[in-house]
Amino acid sequence: MGTLAFDEDFMPMGVAAPEALLPFFVHNGSFKNGDFLENKKMKMAAPPPARKNMHITVTEPRSKDDEARLKCILGKYLDTISQRINYHIGYPVNIVYDHYATLAPLMRYHLNNCGDPFMENTVDFHSKDFEVGVLDWFAELWEIEKDDYWGYITNGGTEGNLHGILLGREVHPEGILYASKESHYSVFKAARMYRMEVEGINTMINGEMDYDDLRSKLLLNKGKPAIINVTIGTTFKGGMDNLDVIIKTLEECGYSQDEFYIHCDAALSGLIVPFLKNVPKISFKKPIGSVTISGHKFLGCPMPCGIQMTRKSLIHNISRNVEYIASVDATISGSRNGLTPIFLWYSLSTKGRAGLRKDAERCVETAKHLRDRLQAAGVSAMVNDNGITVVFERPPDREFIRRWQLSCVRDMAHVIVMPGVATEAIDNFFNDLVHERANWYREEWGRQPPCLEDDLGSHNCYCPLHKV
Amino acid sequence: MGTLAFDEDFMPMGVAAPEALLPFFVHNGSFKNGDFLENKKMKMAAPPPARKNMHITVTEPRSKDDEARLKCILGKYLDTISQRINYHIGYPVNIVYDHYATLAPLMRYHLNNCGDPFMENTVDFHSKDFEVGVLDWFAELWEIEKDDYWGYITNGGTEGNLHGILLGREVHPEGILYASKESHYSVFKAARMYRMEVEGINTMINGEMDYDDLRSKLLLNKGKPAIINVTIGTTFKGGMDNLDVIIKTLEECGYSQDEFYIHCDAALSGLIVPFLKNVPKISFKKPIGSVTISGHKFLGCPMPCGIQMTRKSLIHNISRNVEYIASVDATISGSRNGLTPIFLWYSLSTKGRAGLRKDAERCVETAKHLRDRLQAAGVSAMVNDNGITVVFERPPDREFIRRWQLSCVRDMAHVIVMPGVATEAIDNFFNDLVHERANWYREEWGRQPPCLEDDLGSHNCYCPLHKV
Repeated sequence: MGTLAFDEDFMPMGVAAPEALLPFFVHNGSFKNGDFLENKKMKMAAPPPARKNMHITVTEPRSKDDEARLKCILGKYLDTISQRINYHIGYPVNIVYDHYATLAPLMRYHLNNCGDPFMENTVDFHSKDFEVGVLDWFAELWEIEKDDYWGYITNGGTEGNLHGILLGREVHPEGILYASKESHYSVFKAARMYRMEVEGINTMINGEMDYDDLRSKLLLNKGKPAIINVTIGTTFKGGMDNLDVIIKTLEECGYSQDEFYIHCDAALSGLIVPFLKNVPKISFKKPIGSVTISGHKFLGCPMPCGIQMTRKSLIHNISRNVEYIASVDATISGSRNGLTPIFLWYSLSTKGRAGLRKDAERCVETAKHLRDRLQAAGVSAMVNDNGITVVFERPPDREFIRRWQLSCVRDMAHVIVMPGVATEAIDNFFNDLVHERANWYREEWGRQPPCLEDDLGSHNCYCPLHKV
Repeated sequence: MGTLAFDEDFMPMGVAAPEALLPFFVHNGSFKNGDFLENKKMKMAAPPPARKNMHITVTEPRSKDDEARLKCILGKYLDTISQRINYHIGYPVNIVYDHYATLAPLMRYHLNNCGDPFMENTVDFHSKDFEVGVLDWFAELWEIEKDDYWGYITNGGTEGNLHGILLGREVHPEGILYASKESHYSVFKAARMYRMEVEGINTMINGEMDYDDLRSKLLLNKGKPAIINVTIGTTFKGGMDNLDVIIKTLEECGYSQDEFYIHCDAALSGLIVPFLKNVPKISFKKPIGSVTISGHKFLGCPMPCGIQMTRKSLIHNISRNVEYIASVDATISGSRNGLTPIFLWYSLSTKGRAGLRKDAERCVETAKHLRDRLQAAGVSAMVNDNGITVVFERPPDREFIRRWQLSCVRDMAHVIVMPGVATEAIDNFFNDLVHERANWYREEWGRQPPCLEDDLGSHNCYCPLHKV
């Protein structure tokens, strides 16, 4: 595994060492030139450099050669990203889509699942039959009868949240939206779009909702219905709000079932939860209104997509209300991608529940293992019970962050162990981090790793102050 | 060209003649059995039947054979739709995507242009460089400097409308939305989502906004800002609101430029308009706030997509407002399809302005020709000046509608001459219609074609009452 920040051999011809590739201290200033040169001497089999944006333009075609030029740009693009697969550990998507060769012929057609998946169109170029097949599978997973649910395949988790929260608002026009402060930002975007009152709820160290704070805000707003966003897998820490505790809290605060609406944002962890112990099940046997999940995350898909599911009784209510404007369409997006339902159907059918369970178990296991190794090496790190997101101290080197395609917030970074992430990639990352870190925090330079007590808790913080 | 309503040879094994395939009179009752049998005798080289939805399920994989079964289902699906290409004349999409072989390898990866196209990510698997290239091309088309615009590639026209109207509302929180009654339904959906007051404006026979009605409603609501949706190509008739007349009307009613916001929904005709004479140009040199256009319609793309463009000054305004919730993202969808920007870049680059102009001219010409032939054959029909949408009397035969994948409203159907629609397909359709029509309206049965005076105007109506 290479550890070098910069390797001339990988630079496109005629391009000087770009500033972005130089080691860069985010908080504590930057390396001196000498450090960079020393780094250069250390070079081993260097990793492929992070992709640099190309300058792409659309120009008027003039001759047959032009198409060759386009293909050359495409080839270069594909070549670059294909080298970077094993360095993609910071974002919750399955980066490689296994079935592309089988499914590529679909791309020859424009497939459009316009409007309601259960409504017949007069057109042939749709895949609503595949869509309904996928929805039925999720209906079984979430314990709702085929005749009782309504849903559709969305363009991603955000669309699911926009739809679920809209349903909540239509059921309770004066309702207040409650969402933990670590909810996906689309939840707050929805509140603004829909002109809803919103209460941000504090979170605990692990990213989970603080139920005491929820309780006090519910009691404060008694008299107005509650629309609750429950996050099953927060974006940064993978925290899981406890659906059962939330329902119990609502009951204890005196909210009857016709005074609240629950939307479950299971974008990240919805396909892991069913296979884990001690995690509340997502089920329509509980008083929830809607569930959304991403399709391109744990399962994988070449483009963003998701599943949104609700009760047929609720959507009928909405459809009646909007009859004069759009009786045919209760979706957000209208014209909808007809490829994704087939991709999801194919992936689910080849993987099955057994395959998903295996993936979930391996990912949880690998995440725990990485956390243990990091802590053993003196690096602040945390992973939630049953989580696949390993949060650790933010590397102070921008090039390292780009090399491993890490996502950072404040003094934290995270690695998400998705099914497509090989154990070897995690090992390589760990070795690279430990090696580089020795440089970042050399004693003679007097720099120290950040304190993460507030973000990870003192027991997970290995900064000089909290290290035993 | 086949003319038959039903052909046993094309039925899947074991399936009896389904009711849906029997000739069906929408308004005047149904054929007698005898008619149906007579039809059967007339059969010629029969067209491929309309696709019937399959019963698709997701089942747990058990053996290697399962994958063969999945591929068989896929093969059947592809086989059926590929036979139906030349019968797709009723919807405004380019059904075949020419470049699929070149671009299919992209499908191997999950490509995600999360958030703002102009913001750098720490991840490699995006195509924001291609996205910005495409946006730059549209910026030039719509006459706005690179430094002055902001935009992104959407999941389709609906998302563009949702975004444009949201921009309008954020600029004018108390503004009233004005939209012609033939605006796309997503415009009214947006008003409901965003809790906006809305004024539906009457339309003229050709689908264009009635400016007198706009004027009187603007005067009535004086004192409240106006957010105007301008439709460049209505869904059913392809009517084009006149941007210049609308701006003039606003001025004449005393609305200053800081009292109105104009969103142009050019989903259908945005790529035709620049190449036609006597049509007001879409330009940011005029006081407009945003423009949206579909990418899968005139240009073509395997999945729905679109371009949304606005002024950087406006988006900055919004971004400031939402900073506390989502400073990084001014889009609607958040995680965004990374394939579509590359598809659009490739299509635009191979076709170019010259190719688009040629397409536009051919489509307009063919549409006019079809209108002329229909009228000459005594069929009520209309096409707008510079239009590609031919509206005509709704066929009373459900099987015919399905065969040609027609979209119908009230007593009207339409054919949309898209670049992918071969002249031969239009000829075949015309011949089939005239042949079948002789059956539908046989004198001895006393049935008559519908009167379309109200919808198409008396000069385009060829019903027995208005026929000269």
